[in-house]
Amino acid sequence: MRCEFIAIGTELLLGQIVNSNAAWLGEQLALSGIDCLYHVTIGDNRQRMQDTIQQALHRSDAVIVSGGLGPTQDDITREVIADVMQVGLTRDDEIADRIRHRFESRGRVMSENNLRQADIPDGGFTIPQMPGTAPGLICPVGDKVIYAVPGVPFEMKMMITECVLPDMKKRSGITSVIKSRVLKTWGQTESGLDEMLTERMAYLDQNGGATIAFQASGIEGLKVRLTVKEVSEEAASEALAKEEMAVRDIIGDYIFGTDEETMESVVLNLLRQRNLTIAIAESVTGGMVSARLTAIPGSSDVLKGGIVSYASEVKYDLLNVPNGPVVTPDCARAMAEGVREALKADVGISTTGVAGPSEQEGQPVGTVHLGIAFGDHVEAQSTQLPGDRARVREYGVISLLNFVRLKILGRNANTPFSGNQN
Amino acid sequence: MRCEFIAIGTELLLGQIVNSNAAWLGEQLALSGIDCLYHVTIGDNRQRMQDTIQQALHRSDAVIVSGGLGPTQDDITREVIADVMQVGLTRDDEIADRIRHRFESRGRVMSENNLRQADIPDGGFTIPQMPGTAPGLICPVGDKVIYAVPGVPFEMKMMITECVLPDMKKRSGITSVIKSRVLKTWGQTESGLDEMLTERMAYLDQNGGATIAFQASGIEGLKVRLTVKEVSEEAASEALAKEEMAVRDIIGDYIFGTDEETMESVVLNLLRQRNLTIAIAESVTGGMVSARLTAIPGSSDVLKGGIVSYASEVKYDLLNVPNGPVVTPDCARAMAEGVREALKADVGISTTGVAGPSEQEGQPVGTVHLGIAFGDHVEAQSTQLPGDRARVREYGVISLLNFVRLKILGRNANTPFSGNQN
Repeated sequence: MRCEFIAIGTELLLGQIVNSNAAWLGEQLALSGIDCLYHVTIGDNRQRMQDTIQQALHRSDAVIVSGGLGPTQDDITREVIADVMQVGLTRDDEIADRIRHRFESRGRVMSENNLRQADIPDGGFTIPQMPGTAPGLICPVGDKVIYAVPGVPFEMKMMITECVLPDMKKRSGITSVIKSRVLKTWGQTESGLDEMLTERMAYLDQNGGATIAFQASGIEGLKVRLTVKEVSEEAASEALAKEEMAVRDIIGDYIFGTDEETMESVVLNLLRQRNLTIAIAESVTGGMVSARLTAIPGSSDVLKGGIVSYASEVKYDLLNVPNGPVVTPDCARAMAEGVREALKADVGISTTGVAGPSEQEGQPVGTVHLGIAFGDHVEAQSTQLPGDRARVREYGVISLLNFVRLKILGRNANTPFSGNQN
Repeated sequence: MRCEFIAIGTELLLGQIVNSNAAWLGEQLALSGIDCLYHVTIGDNRQRMQDTIQQALHRSDAVIVSGGLGPTQDDITREVIADVMQVGLTRDDEIADRIRHRFESRGRVMSENNLRQADIPDGGFTIPQMPGTAPGLICPVGDKVIYAVPGVPFEMKMMITECVLPDMKKRSGITSVIKSRVLKTWGQTESGLDEMLTERMAYLDQNGGATIAFQASGIEGLKVRLTVKEVSEEAASEALAKEEMAVRDIIGDYIFGTDEETMESVVLNLLRQRNLTIAIAESVTGGMVSARLTAIPGSSDVLKGGIVSYASEVKYDLLNVPNGPVVTPDCARAMAEGVREALKADVGISTTGVAGPSEQEGQPVGTVHLGIAFGDHVEAQSTQLPGDRARVREYGVISLLNFVRLKILGRNANTPFSGNQN
């Protein structure tokens, strides 16, 4: 099956937003074994939308259109699809009720134009998943099909994953199964991992089997993706498990999780398993570590809370840090002990450092000290992180959590950057 | 002049990289007054490249192609453009020398295929700027033109800025200037703003002038973009200022900033101007408010820090919240007072609520109470936020900061969701 992706939105053409939906969708289609040969972006213009959808239908089997499904005047995707199908639009009362109910349940007044979203091209169907107020559409045109989804990423992703991809696979009779697993790593650079895996990748190139790809993902770590294509679900699972073992044998020390796991979820689970509570003292990361951990439902089991000791006097007053310089391993250790005590937690952890743009206490931008107080151990790790303010803070977060993970596991910490333990 | 952007690269279709070049280029073209009606992404495939370039030439005056100019076998943009022009390729000795020299000067061995990059379609010219080893191309086709630039962002950007845009403007005799301004709002829904501005937009539609567009941007607020096209820089600035005044007359209460300003930067600036320091107590937002504020360089001037009082006992112990239920306006007020005192700040602010996935203390997901302690005023605002855990937290952050902004300005708070002040 050949498909084509059309993103609707003048704001995309004008560069007001980056079309990150295209990359996400491209990846999902590839992982489903569906070829996507064109991504086209056009503005909210009736004629151009119609021409582009028609051309796509002509040269592909399926067309995914995103955007233009909202309640406002310039949202005309529904009308254009009806024109392409040469049919009218009929208001779907059930959808209209869902939209009304959504407003009512939030105590919000609904303006009438919202009900335009319930107008469905005749012969089309709505996508059952409807996380927002705009329903998605499945509109058959002869033996081809147009899918319409909202441009809002989380709405689009839910509809694509739960409805559009399964529908496309069914229509195209795809039987080969592509499966992939992401091994998430921290503590080694991309070229470092590439070197370690060179031999394995050469072997796979020659003998077939999985493919291995790297993807640096900032605060998410460095991802190693294994992908296999097999004749059945079972064969794919087996091949993937086998390849994962081979890769773990080589780079296992750096792998902290797989697939949907994040450094945060892994650390929270480790703590939960051991019945430990944690408290966080943050300076350079300014609340980001707490924010990441509390993003996970159920984190309240183990996370007592934290102190964002941005001003030095907050470190002295609330965390019992001795007066003096604060960009030091000593300060990181004192912060970790201080927050553990103040919040009566089992584990205290901390960050202090220089995010930039300018140096502090004579320390260069990127200097970050991480602290942990855990049982009798009070330790710090110092590292020099690359990048601008945002990146230093992001890398600081994942570096701290990896440090905590390894310490809880009783292992030595490793860092992809110059680091040493104090 | 109408132009079209074609990005070449299978890795873009597969989602291995995000096509951020398209957004950058779209913005540059808009700011230069050049209409760009299509962005197309295709793989490194000769036939599809040829078809797509030909179609673009047919419906536009200029085509910008990025990618496929490298030294490897699958880099075929040069050949395809020559085919479209129906000419041959001739090696440019001067360019070949520049490529050779670049390798020599870095002490690297050059493989012969690198010289393919010096093959220029007959009748075409090279772009003088050449930050990498791939020269860009200007290839006239009748009274139209194809530009080819590398896909590497910094190479592309240099060639576009220094050569392609000036060349396009010259060819098209453009003298008009496009300017836009983003008004950032919070406190009203998109359809609500749309309705308020309906009359103004109808007037502009009929009488010409600015265009108005909306863009919901989560934690960034709801953006209203005004765009004008005028004969000179001066006329554009004037028209934009006039339109901004007209729009502010209608929705001014909801506008918190413009263009590069964020809710965080606006609040920090308000505090800085008044010589006030702030401290934050977070429960439902779990550190996100602190993290957002500390993302801004120089926030340490006004931000003392915060306490993430995730567990109830942290609220009781560190913030002096009376024992009892914590998802209440009373708790929000006590938290704001408590953190102001503990961190010796001028202003204390707080969040408490239910992010989900399940209810808490009998309160539904989305219940959020915001607190502020400022001078003699200790107030709370209660709101019911829509969406999942991530969105409730994001909306909680911007709602709190907007509440703080309005209170510092001595105005009443408004919320796009059901809200009331206690």
